[in-house]
Amino acid sequence: MTSQDARTSENGREIGWHKDYVTGSRPDLRVPVRRVHLTNGQDVQLYDTSGPYTDPDVETDVRRGLLPLRENWIIARGDTEEYAGRPMRPEDDGIKHTSPRGGLKNLDAVFPGRPRQPRRGRAGAAVTQLAYARRGEVTAEMEYVALRENVSPETVREEIAAGRAVLPANVNHPEIEPMIIGKKFLVKVNANIGNSAVTSSIEEEVEKMTWATRWGADTVMDLSTGRNIHTTREWVLRNSPVPIGTVPLYQALEKVDGKAEELTWEIYKDTVIEQAEQGVDYMTVHAGVLLRYVPLTARRKTGIVSRGGSIMAAWCLAHHKESFLYENFEELCEILAAYDVTYSLGDGLRPGSIADANDEAQFAELKTLGELNTIAKRHNVQTMIEGPGHVPMHKIKENIDLQQEICEEAPFYTLGPLTTDVAPAYDHITSGIGAAMIAWWGTAMLCYVTPKEHLGLPDRDDVKTGVITYKIAAHAADLAKGHPGAQEWDDALSDARFEFRWEDQFNLALDPDTARAFHDETLPAEPAKTAHFCSMCGPKFCSMKISQDIRREHGGDLAVDVEAGMAQKSEEFAAAGNRVYLPIAD
Amino acid sequence: MTSQDARTSENGREIGWHKDYVTGSRPDLRVPVRRVHLTNGQDVQLYDTSGPYTDPDVETDVRRGLLPLRENWIIARGDTEEYAGRPMRPEDDGIKHTSPRGGLKNLDAVFPGRPRQPRRGRAGAAVTQLAYARRGEVTAEMEYVALRENVSPETVREEIAAGRAVLPANVNHPEIEPMIIGKKFLVKVNANIGNSAVTSSIEEEVEKMTWATRWGADTVMDLSTGRNIHTTREWVLRNSPVPIGTVPLYQALEKVDGKAEELTWEIYKDTVIEQAEQGVDYMTVHAGVLLRYVPLTARRKTGIVSRGGSIMAAWCLAHHKESFLYENFEELCEILAAYDVTYSLGDGLRPGSIADANDEAQFAELKTLGELNTIAKRHNVQTMIEGPGHVPMHKIKENIDLQQEICEEAPFYTLGPLTTDVAPAYDHITSGIGAAMIAWWGTAMLCYVTPKEHLGLPDRDDVKTGVITYKIAAHAADLAKGHPGAQEWDDALSDARFEFRWEDQFNLALDPDTARAFHDETLPAEPAKTAHFCSMCGPKFCSMKISQDIRREHGGDLAVDVEAGMAQKSEEFAAAGNRVYLPIAD
Repeated sequence: MTSQDARTSENGREIGWHKDYVTGSRPDLRVPVRRVHLTNGQDVQLYDTSGPYTDPDVETDVRRGLLPLRENWIIARGDTEEYAGRPMRPEDDGIKHTSPRGGLKNLDAVFPGRPRQPRRGRAGAAVTQLAYARRGEVTAEMEYVALRENVSPETVREEIAAGRAVLPANVNHPEIEPMIIGKKFLVKVNANIGNSAVTSSIEEEVEKMTWATRWGADTVMDLSTGRNIHTTREWVLRNSPVPIGTVPLYQALEKVDGKAEELTWEIYKDTVIEQAEQGVDYMTVHAGVLLRYVPLTARRKTGIVSRGGSIMAAWCLAHHKESFLYENFEELCEILAAYDVTYSLGDGLRPGSIADANDEAQFAELKTLGELNTIAKRHNVQTMIEGPGHVPMHKIKENIDLQQEICEEAPFYTLGPLTTDVAPAYDHITSGIGAAMIAWWGTAMLCYVTPKEHLGLPDRDDVKTGVITYKIAAHAADLAKGHPGAQEWDDALSDARFEFRWEDQFNLALDPDTARAFHDETLPAEPAKTAHFCSMCGPKFCSMKISQDIRREHGGDLAVDVEAGMAQKSEEFAAAGNRVYLPIAD
Repeated sequence: MTSQDARTSENGREIGWHKDYVTGSRPDLRVPVRRVHLTNGQDVQLYDTSGPYTDPDVETDVRRGLLPLRENWIIARGDTEEYAGRPMRPEDDGIKHTSPRGGLKNLDAVFPGRPRQPRRGRAGAAVTQLAYARRGEVTAEMEYVALRENVSPETVREEIAAGRAVLPANVNHPEIEPMIIGKKFLVKVNANIGNSAVTSSIEEEVEKMTWATRWGADTVMDLSTGRNIHTTREWVLRNSPVPIGTVPLYQALEKVDGKAEELTWEIYKDTVIEQAEQGVDYMTVHAGVLLRYVPLTARRKTGIVSRGGSIMAAWCLAHHKESFLYENFEELCEILAAYDVTYSLGDGLRPGSIADANDEAQFAELKTLGELNTIAKRHNVQTMIEGPGHVPMHKIKENIDLQQEICEEAPFYTLGPLTTDVAPAYDHITSGIGAAMIAWWGTAMLCYVTPKEHLGLPDRDDVKTGVITYKIAAHAADLAKGHPGAQEWDDALSDARFEFRWEDQFNLALDPDTARAFHDETLPAEPAKTAHFCSMCGPKFCSMKISQDIRREHGGDLAVDVEAGMAQKSEEFAAAGNRVYLPIAD
């Protein structure tokens, strides 16, 4: 995985894996796959989110950005137009006109890239994938994800048209490799990145994004606060092969120096347009936090733990009226529709502890999110719904069942949930448990949690651990849902395990590097890669070699044999060296 | 945790945690607890498996072993007798008489300890906790676990008498701190240790045992193979505060040079007595592997992956009759009953891959285990049933439901299950997901899986990671089952989190060391330990300080206020600095 292309040759046969593409109905529709070449001559094709960075034939330069794959598709539809767009202002990066240093510091960071003008839907045109799907049109993006998910383009169109799936693809983010989020498709994983006032740089955030997609992140949310929000986002968007999500409220709050009560619809709206023009594919909007819900959180153990939720609660209390997000929701829909920005309706009142799970505040907001979902659909805006949080196992199913009922099966997008509060430093695991369960029951996308949750900012290793843990949860759910083809991966690895094809086990693993390293810790020598045992049981107790013998000597005839006649069989077996499967481990 | 006693003083108040004891109806009945002292003056009492090693007032010496806490209780019952016992033989440690070097090497390793004679039930006496419970007697061990589990002694007696719980406590292992395994009690975790032919020493194994119990292992299985099995076990038993389990078949197989077909009832029986006299508390017995079941595994993807299961399958095929374990099961019951050794009826045909889950072979064996469970109970032998393995999420519940039905609610003891095969190096997580679910549904004990599963021998770090992951699964299940008092731990930690008591969060954490280290990575300075923010959201976006303000200023009156009148409230709120909960993270 860390090497771009791990093909090596073993007795003339190519083994390892390499970046490959499946071409669709047009030459510019090429879906990336990770093709694993096994030592037995078979190939296994795996879903690939790593982008052009793992393609040795593609030259990438973070200062130029990725090639705009979708540009021709978007132009060909002829329903969008380029326009001057909103000029960038210093305050977009949190820089006050009065700031002596900020200005320059900021200029240095400006993304060089290609000169580009923003694009939006022509007056009267409905340019969202939802609108196309409803009109019966199968877009290039839909065909792309159909190939990726190994389903028919019509299935993709139907699910989007019904609002059961979203295909986040801002017309200003042509660099992405289209993907789909819906319960009929593979469970997806989102990784959060974002600098904070305390630490981290723009370069670090871009590197975290490519690192996260390398290990399997299907989307990335840029949750930056503090300085350089606009510029960081520009670098991330131009270099991202996956859809990018944001919470515009964070940047809006920076523009009013963090004073929630000073937020206005105008400032927020301007920020949304700023981000839509940059190409943000989906935006978290906490429009479900109503004034009357805030008191419901007063006796909670951990109050309001959603950043956006608490900001809106503060605003509602300060003005004692419903939020500008709720009051102007229809206009917001029109803006998002013009760029095909997908809604991620935020659960601002989600529980932040086991004690607060499934309480009145949480479910009251969910009901409002259901109403907003209906309005958004009326405007052809693709919509998903965010979910918790901290929830004990026995209360998880109620969350997905209620959400699916109230929100007309709109995709559910949950943070974990964490199934206990007692393990800070291991919340990727406390939440991975809940994530696997809720995904099995219908959640379409899982927001990862890293080991640093509640403690600090995740570093590169934390991002990898978080993504891998959530890919496990997502795949376990794909298996439990019986997703077509999901088990082929497990079967291929189990065959390799049973037949002692160590290299194949490593190359098929979710994390080949670590699997290989762990094996080599106790048996580093190259011969051990073909040895018929590992250090776990040692040579004498190892099942594999002898298992292969028994398959050769008895195989499927075992049943017949036993029924046939014991005495006869007994001699055969003794002659064959009295061997049967020996153990892997007990 | 790494320090034996972490009490420090903060403005005169003792904070941190220390080893404490809850005394029962007699002075020698002292149940260890981990008492955490919070900065707000409150105490939280946690279950403690770490043994005398974390008590600064107790001097321990691995060459002397632990003090025999239970000895007086056992003697006082007057139903057991000391006897000469079986002399140790070189072959017990895998040493051939012909071996030139083995002999001496072995002598060096002999456990110095205290001279002791083995003990067993007097003729005609039924000396198992099951027999006592059935007779209506509440033993000291039962009172001990009642205090430990915070339930009534009568509840403990009832559950044991009904066969729904086991209290593994060999009369020859007086050093243990009694614990109970049953669905009405806290979910327990077992950690496997054991040297293999390839690596590791006796000292390492003893150290792994104390390390595993330090982090929360409730029992430890010594799965050693190769040389020094007997001696390694002696060191482990004499130093273990938790029940020790074994698979006697492994040692028996060593005695016949690994030739399964040469195993006899006499060799096996002698090995069981050898181990029972040493004090093994529970033994895995694969008596459910019947000849006619073996062919059912012939077309499996990964055949038989249980070491014991494959050995018995080989024996059955070699002799073409049912195994000596099955044929002599009643006599084996009599032996185990004499020492109060608990059965762990092994699932020799458990699935080793997603493809093989819940198949005919697995459930055929389960049915036989149900019959053996009934026979064992007739002999007053405490019995639990082992379960899989590799099982996708949607097939997990069938396992526990069938087991509970077929085995009259005998405690289920499962290995994971692993919910996918594709993540070698992360199988603590693939299995932690399945373990949490199956424990919620009624599994009483979980056998941990480390990151090295399928790859190599776990080292010290792997053991810790495996135990912590499984403690998370077990506690998540305790919460989901609504175990009395389980949530108090989560609530205490969530309160500390909401009130920004960092030291309390660390001290309450399952792994205080790592939680503290992760926090300090980005904010190492001592002031940060009391700071009202962490590096995740930074000072401006931090919820905690402001949450505390709002609680002071509005608290529960918020509801009344809002209903009362908006205008009035608006002014109050503005005056109060327009503050409401601010976010933890979004």
